[in-house]
Amino acid sequence: MGKAEMSISRRRVLTGAAAGTAAATLGAITLSSKQARAERTWDHDADIVVVGGGAAGYTAAVIAAGNGDSVIVVEKADSPGGTCAKSGGVFWIPNHFALKAKGIADEKDDCLRYLCRYSFPEAYTPDSPTLGLTPDAYALLEAFYDNGSAMVDRVQALGALKVMHWDMWDLERMPPDYFDHAPENKTSMGRPLGPALPNGKAGNGPEIIGQMGDKLASMRVPVLLEHPAQNLLMNDDGESIGLQADHNGNAVNIQARKAVIFATGGFANNPDMLARYQRNKVYGACAAAVATGDIIPIASAAGAKLGNMTGAWRTEVVLEEALETHEVGSGAFMAGGDSVLQVNKYGRRVVNEKRNYNDRTEIHHVFDPSRAEYPNQLMFTVYDQRTAEAFAGNYPLPSEPTKAPYVLSGDTLDDLAAAISARLSELQPQIGDIELADDFAAVLGDSIARFNDAALSGVDPEFGRGEQEYDRAWTYLFAAPKVSEKWPANNMPNITMHPLSDEGPYYAIIVGAGVLDTNGGPVINAKAQILDKDDKPIPGLYGAGNCIASPSREAYFGAGGTIGLAMTFGYIAANNAHNEPVKQT
Amino acid sequence: MGKAEMSISRRRVLTGAAAGTAAATLGAITLSSKQARAERTWDHDADIVVVGGGAAGYTAAVIAAGNGDSVIVVEKADSPGGTCAKSGGVFWIPNHFALKAKGIADEKDDCLRYLCRYSFPEAYTPDSPTLGLTPDAYALLEAFYDNGSAMVDRVQALGALKVMHWDMWDLERMPPDYFDHAPENKTSMGRPLGPALPNGKAGNGPEIIGQMGDKLASMRVPVLLEHPAQNLLMNDDGESIGLQADHNGNAVNIQARKAVIFATGGFANNPDMLARYQRNKVYGACAAAVATGDIIPIASAAGAKLGNMTGAWRTEVVLEEALETHEVGSGAFMAGGDSVLQVNKYGRRVVNEKRNYNDRTEIHHVFDPSRAEYPNQLMFTVYDQRTAEAFAGNYPLPSEPTKAPYVLSGDTLDDLAAAISARLSELQPQIGDIELADDFAAVLGDSIARFNDAALSGVDPEFGRGEQEYDRAWTYLFAAPKVSEKWPANNMPNITMHPLSDEGPYYAIIVGAGVLDTNGGPVINAKAQILDKDDKPIPGLYGAGNCIASPSREAYFGAGGTIGLAMTFGYIAANNAHNEPVKQT
Repeated sequence: MGKAEMSISRRRVLTGAAAGTAAATLGAITLSSKQARAERTWDHDADIVVVGGGAAGYTAAVIAAGNGDSVIVVEKADSPGGTCAKSGGVFWIPNHFALKAKGIADEKDDCLRYLCRYSFPEAYTPDSPTLGLTPDAYALLEAFYDNGSAMVDRVQALGALKVMHWDMWDLERMPPDYFDHAPENKTSMGRPLGPALPNGKAGNGPEIIGQMGDKLASMRVPVLLEHPAQNLLMNDDGESIGLQADHNGNAVNIQARKAVIFATGGFANNPDMLARYQRNKVYGACAAAVATGDIIPIASAAGAKLGNMTGAWRTEVVLEEALETHEVGSGAFMAGGDSVLQVNKYGRRVVNEKRNYNDRTEIHHVFDPSRAEYPNQLMFTVYDQRTAEAFAGNYPLPSEPTKAPYVLSGDTLDDLAAAISARLSELQPQIGDIELADDFAAVLGDSIARFNDAALSGVDPEFGRGEQEYDRAWTYLFAAPKVSEKWPANNMPNITMHPLSDEGPYYAIIVGAGVLDTNGGPVINAKAQILDKDDKPIPGLYGAGNCIASPSREAYFGAGGTIGLAMTFGYIAANNAHNEPVKQT
Repeated sequence: MGKAEMSISRRRVLTGAAAGTAAATLGAITLSSKQARAERTWDHDADIVVVGGGAAGYTAAVIAAGNGDSVIVVEKADSPGGTCAKSGGVFWIPNHFALKAKGIADEKDDCLRYLCRYSFPEAYTPDSPTLGLTPDAYALLEAFYDNGSAMVDRVQALGALKVMHWDMWDLERMPPDYFDHAPENKTSMGRPLGPALPNGKAGNGPEIIGQMGDKLASMRVPVLLEHPAQNLLMNDDGESIGLQADHNGNAVNIQARKAVIFATGGFANNPDMLARYQRNKVYGACAAAVATGDIIPIASAAGAKLGNMTGAWRTEVVLEEALETHEVGSGAFMAGGDSVLQVNKYGRRVVNEKRNYNDRTEIHHVFDPSRAEYPNQLMFTVYDQRTAEAFAGNYPLPSEPTKAPYVLSGDTLDDLAAAISARLSELQPQIGDIELADDFAAVLGDSIARFNDAALSGVDPEFGRGEQEYDRAWTYLFAAPKVSEKWPANNMPNITMHPLSDEGPYYAIIVGAGVLDTNGGPVINAKAQILDKDDKPIPGLYGAGNCIASPSREAYFGAGGTIGLAMTFGYIAANNAHNEPVKQT
């Protein structure tokens, strides 16, 4: 039977979405039970259809196939991997095999205190049974703890991924968590894992996708590339029974006998959604280009409840790179030197420049009630010749000090201010009317003087730079110096700070708020089932990864906090989908 | 024909929503064209169905009836008025008749600069044709300017509402706008209007509802109370053709030949939605109890695009009142005295206490990247005997100084800190683990000393309290003193500040973030049509008021910024709905 015979009771959101032709919109289609079942046809079928071929989706697919389910992976891009393939490939997992092997206890009660305290600072209550969280929110973080380590063991046992303790690649250092100084964090080092290369070293994101992709191939799991999801297919009982994807302008109907697992990206590359759901301005995104939030209208049409839509994995981005492409190659994860500070348009420091990128970027979204503006909307990373040369190549510092078009310079602070002002004027059609304060250079001078005092004393009384282990340890990755005769090692009492030179040239890079990806979307429960607005699971519909409302909300537990959650909830989804009854079509 | 004969092709979101019985969920229903038309029945029918009997809905209804359309108003509560009936009834309108009568020009170009600058600080660009906004966002604000004054003229011409210049009731003062010091604001006084009582004085919210309700009655427009909206009814062409409401457990089907206008409230009284869409914690809401965001799932199921979901009309609320009921009688609109300041849990001032309630409340949502917490989640309004007595009755100051259970006191600052700590401990099961810093009392002492210096000099170098006309003018409404021999008038150079006494007793009130109502929801265009995710209008579906994504985003233009927008877009919706074709059912 041809696709044209397939009978679809169309809904409003489906106008134009006839079977066999390209679906013009995203949504959900109810297949009417009143049509003879024999009239329908499916282009593909499987027990479980996984939408999205990144970390969450590939984990779900290998777990599902390992459970004996037939699986199809549907991927929008022309190659698999999603944002994972652009990443360092680290995944943050509590209480895993490598910690256990080293005799490090990562107890459930302690770990959940850290997760809950960091994710819900406004609700955390130490002596509450759910630590102050709603039972649903607590259950999600508990599921992460309970399943993360088991997920790792399972993908290893399946031969889908070889996993090792991640020690910052060649640095061979244990990475501190991103809120390592939380009193609740009793195991603040060593939770990140990574994929092991054949040579025994840690790989990065493509290695996860490569190994898992090989495993999927060996298990004969099809990965349909260039098949963007268009519509969920539902039966009259409101159960998810498949997915309609688009392929080269044709609708492709894929039956999911047991379940559809959404494991796609967020909406980081959808500027319209960013404007509607996120505060202030998000200039750029590290996420893969396909992260355009397609699941939001699709799942909404199926009745899904949305959550954490204002949430994101945040990072600063180099303004001009983001303006050019929106999707950027990397975030500006840390100000990459020691004789470097960041100021706002008033010339004032407002944050510890070595704080982790997720929390640090929040500073851009602070609103000043008196001026009715975002005073830190853009920040200016200011540094001297030492940082330009000795730290060259620590992105965003270019490998040759002034060779990047986004690096501004001036012989004096006044000259630097003039260069920044000129650049802001050039960019005004794109960024609006952001001007340096008239006394910017003078206030910047004061800020540098105070910073230099702090560098000499080792203590930053304003923002505590270098006070926490995070600041110091991550400096080795994000701000590694090239020591030379001209630029000796930092011999100051606090290696994160070195006085700026009293003499120019001085440099500046303009940074704005960005995201790795957003992490809001359909709300799931601890079984990774997508919920409707009454908190009832939509039968046969699961979610994991950046496309769903993150269990961590705004918190980034440590390196790989993104992928660790994605893989774990992919695993949870696949295991629960395995027990789903076969749906009537 | 009985309701049971009505044939409905049910969707997932409608499980259990059989015609004639209570609809258990909210969503959209497509009425199948394949069913014989004759089989259908409607309980009521009208050209235009207005959902919500508040300021937006009543304006839409009187305008529609005035246009000759038959109208039905559907209201969830057992009395009309929504949040308007709890409000001061002020509406902020540009370039209105009373300004014109006084010869005050409120030019379009100037006014739009104010609206755009305040609503989109991160995008405002003076020399852009759309002032840096997207064309859609600009068009909404332009529509507000273009229609606001005409709306007022029309409701007056219809005899639906008698309108007067609002001069702060008995104070007879022109109220400055909420960002009166914006350089773009050329008409910063006099835009607020109010309903005129028979005695010539300004009434408040119930007066708007009363006068318009009388007019609706005289035009024989039914207002169906206790009819919460349940489902939009759509035809196979994706057009809105009516509404299914619930009444005493029965589904009531109301045909809208031309259009359905959603003019309901936000989701201020839906704690689950607040947690999912708003940042940090919203403790309480001024909005009517019925503001539970019902339109969000209903419109989402119809394919509507959502916007500004993180937005709200903000105000501080008295913590303990909000914890008790969530819906509160009033916001804590201003710290109601002169010898009064606000500090956070570290004892530090962080905001101009006389700034308008909308912008000021943003301070609660500032995130500290280093501590990974909201340091201003709760704020402590601290004052002395002068403010307690001379300003008694300026809510939240009770009319008898210590007679409100939420007023804490201590003979010394140490005692006060101990009283606050004890109260926070008592409240811990509800508010989580929020503790004063160990040195709170000492830092508070320093803050008071600096504040007292500022009061003596008249200049608040940290936060500019009293610098703007807003701070001074609104003090007369929110912080009116009872001058006596014991408490002489404030003779300081800046009437918003008076030194706190060196001697106790001292008092404190704990305040948290709240909202008047949220203002996110379906996105509309300049015709007030609700848009789908491709920005195409959903035929026959309009929106106005707090239920839609506010054209003003986070900005509160001035007194009545809420109701002014609501009435204007209600007017726009009714006029455009008038020209809608009659829909096939």
